[in-house]
Amino acid sequence: MMNNVSIVGVGQTPVGEHWGIGLRQLGLQAMQAAMNDAKIQDVDAVVVGNALAGLMSKQNHLGALMTDFAGMRGTEGVRVEAADASGGIALRQGMMLVASGAAETVLVLGVEKATDILASARISALAAFLDNEYEAAMGATPVGLMAMLMRRYMLEYNVELSCFANFSVNAHLNGSSNANAMFRNKLKAENFAKASVVADPVNLFDVAPEADGAAAVILTSSERAADMVPQPVRILGSAIATDRLAVHDREDMLYLSAVGLAAERAYQQTGLKPKDIDLLELHDSATIMSTLALEASGFAPRGHGWRLAADGKLGLAGELPISTFGGLKARGNPLGATGVYQTVEAALQLRGEAGANQVKDAKIAMLQNVAMLGGTAAVHILGVE
Amino acid sequence: MMNNVSIVGVGQTPVGEHWGIGLRQLGLQAMQAAMNDAKIQDVDAVVVGNALAGLMSKQNHLGALMTDFAGMRGTEGVRVEAADASGGIALRQGMMLVASGAAETVLVLGVEKATDILASARISALAAFLDNEYEAAMGATPVGLMAMLMRRYMLEYNVELSCFANFSVNAHLNGSSNANAMFRNKLKAENFAKASVVADPVNLFDVAPEADGAAAVILTSSERAADMVPQPVRILGSAIATDRLAVHDREDMLYLSAVGLAAERAYQQTGLKPKDIDLLELHDSATIMSTLALEASGFAPRGHGWRLAADGKLGLAGELPISTFGGLKARGNPLGATGVYQTVEAALQLRGEAGANQVKDAKIAMLQNVAMLGGTAAVHILGVE
Repeated sequence: MMNNVSIVGVGQTPVGEHWGIGLRQLGLQAMQAAMNDAKIQDVDAVVVGNALAGLMSKQNHLGALMTDFAGMRGTEGVRVEAADASGGIALRQGMMLVASGAAETVLVLGVEKATDILASARISALAAFLDNEYEAAMGATPVGLMAMLMRRYMLEYNVELSCFANFSVNAHLNGSSNANAMFRNKLKAENFAKASVVADPVNLFDVAPEADGAAAVILTSSERAADMVPQPVRILGSAIATDRLAVHDREDMLYLSAVGLAAERAYQQTGLKPKDIDLLELHDSATIMSTLALEASGFAPRGHGWRLAADGKLGLAGELPISTFGGLKARGNPLGATGVYQTVEAALQLRGEAGANQVKDAKIAMLQNVAMLGGTAAVHILGVE
Repeated sequence: MMNNVSIVGVGQTPVGEHWGIGLRQLGLQAMQAAMNDAKIQDVDAVVVGNALAGLMSKQNHLGALMTDFAGMRGTEGVRVEAADASGGIALRQGMMLVASGAAETVLVLGVEKATDILASARISALAAFLDNEYEAAMGATPVGLMAMLMRRYMLEYNVELSCFANFSVNAHLNGSSNANAMFRNKLKAENFAKASVVADPVNLFDVAPEADGAAAVILTSSERAADMVPQPVRILGSAIATDRLAVHDREDMLYLSAVGLAAERAYQQTGLKPKDIDLLELHDSATIMSTLALEASGFAPRGHGWRLAADGKLGLAGELPISTFGGLKARGNPLGATGVYQTVEAALQLRGEAGANQVKDAKIAMLQNVAMLGGTAAVHILGVE
């Protein structure tokens, strides 16, 4: 690649239920925060990751909407979509504009309003990210399918529900010190198994909540970045991979091959291995998805992903800190914005600006942004000197 | 930019009402045709331009859907969206993957099923590409807004409805010899003004029909392209620009500033001027949009765009052949696929394979893919030696 690409600004809004503010206003807050952080006034292009605005708010065409509302009339603006991996996709598309030399500075925005309609309507909208004809049309929902994967996993590896509890306990602990997190309450392991069932065996303390939120990062060439900010964060590796969209079409439904492939490509690009990763922003949309992603990306052998949580290795001071600001479970899952939140949080870690959530001596971070049941995975590796 | 990028394969399906075939099947036909044309078996990435599948077919996440259905499990796949400029956006995103060196070969697919639901539901869905809060929520529709622009233009420049007739006459004439066109009937100028009114003064023979269709192109580095096919078509210029999304927010609503800006950037990148363009694939979603785009991109002075049609200069043998296979009006407007159709058609022209529609000695082509009322414009310039 011609240009190496670095992150020189980050911004985010609190994650939660923003009923008093619209999509464009929410997005603008994150854009302005990122531009203030990078100390710049404008950019050459804006790439927007968004999943649901068309179905939820009857608003598509967000490239024009957001450049317009931000007062950047004329600026290149596009929207990309891959369900709740839209943010990670946007990061890579923005990176390509800089890497190719087509743009000097790019703003990558993830923005989502997911709570403005009834949960039943949201569940119906989310089904549009599954295989409509063979999954959604038969009544499958994302969490329903996650529940089937979890049931299968528990049977296959003889694992109890309580074995997964520590993923959520850890997420809530990390979220408790994140001012932008949706949930800041701590969770006790003994309460995990008592939570209301969403789709048996997945319960309310197992699955991440859809939420409203916006996050943004500013990208530029690494060469230029060094002159702009004291601590640019370099994108060392970037890969997107897909899997069979419908879970029933997969040869091995307990292996997230898109995560595996994208991680493998990112490892190859960087020469890094799982043991080199100082922190992992995991797509913990449900504990089974965390488990499977850890296994697919080389952090645990098949059938052992849950052990990392159970053994307490995933905390901020552990062997492999994950979801360091609470992850999807406690920070919240603003769908198309989630991948950009992961980027912002990892960049703060690498800059040493993560406050109470700081992972000590963090130099290398991996981001895993996974669409629904793993149909698409965007994996990035970030680093600082 | 590191790599120059060329087109080495093109494919398309007929445009029309494909009620007997689904989105994925339609897309696959174009993908296979393009890969056969390039004589390749696989690609490194697929970029899908699609506008409406979420709202019309409850199917998002098309990057995974299309790579999966095409048997390309694992391949990088993303979807981009900017209303009916989604195809042009996809072309540029695909180009960036090659230009940066991240991918060697990329398939850009535009696919749309726009006729599977009642027209009333489609009109409601299309409003999601306007400014929902300030245009759609007030009852505005895309064609309704085009009608207001046309009325204003007619008043401002003292132009009659009949002055626009030749845009449609020309489109139908070109479409009559295109086997993939939705409409192959010729149109007489005297029948133009008698057509049923859609939104006064825009009538049925003035506005382009939404349609089903899929088109695909294969991109690779120009260096590699020369070894692959006898006549690669090079992407000489590429630019995306946006405008205020809502028409009422624009200082000058009869100037399509996104088209103007994107064209200006493409001219600057290539050192070319309007007079160097041998053919123009115009976004003729309505005759007023053709008129305004010709003016914004330097082919006619303000208030004179319609004269090019009235004076008969836009035919295949004219000064500036436009919409050479029938354009949106006669080939049809498969929304998110339209920009890729334009690319396919221009590539066929530059390869000298346009048959009865061939523009003599065509060496340089411009593509203008415009979203709705001009909120986004993607302009590309293609060339052959």
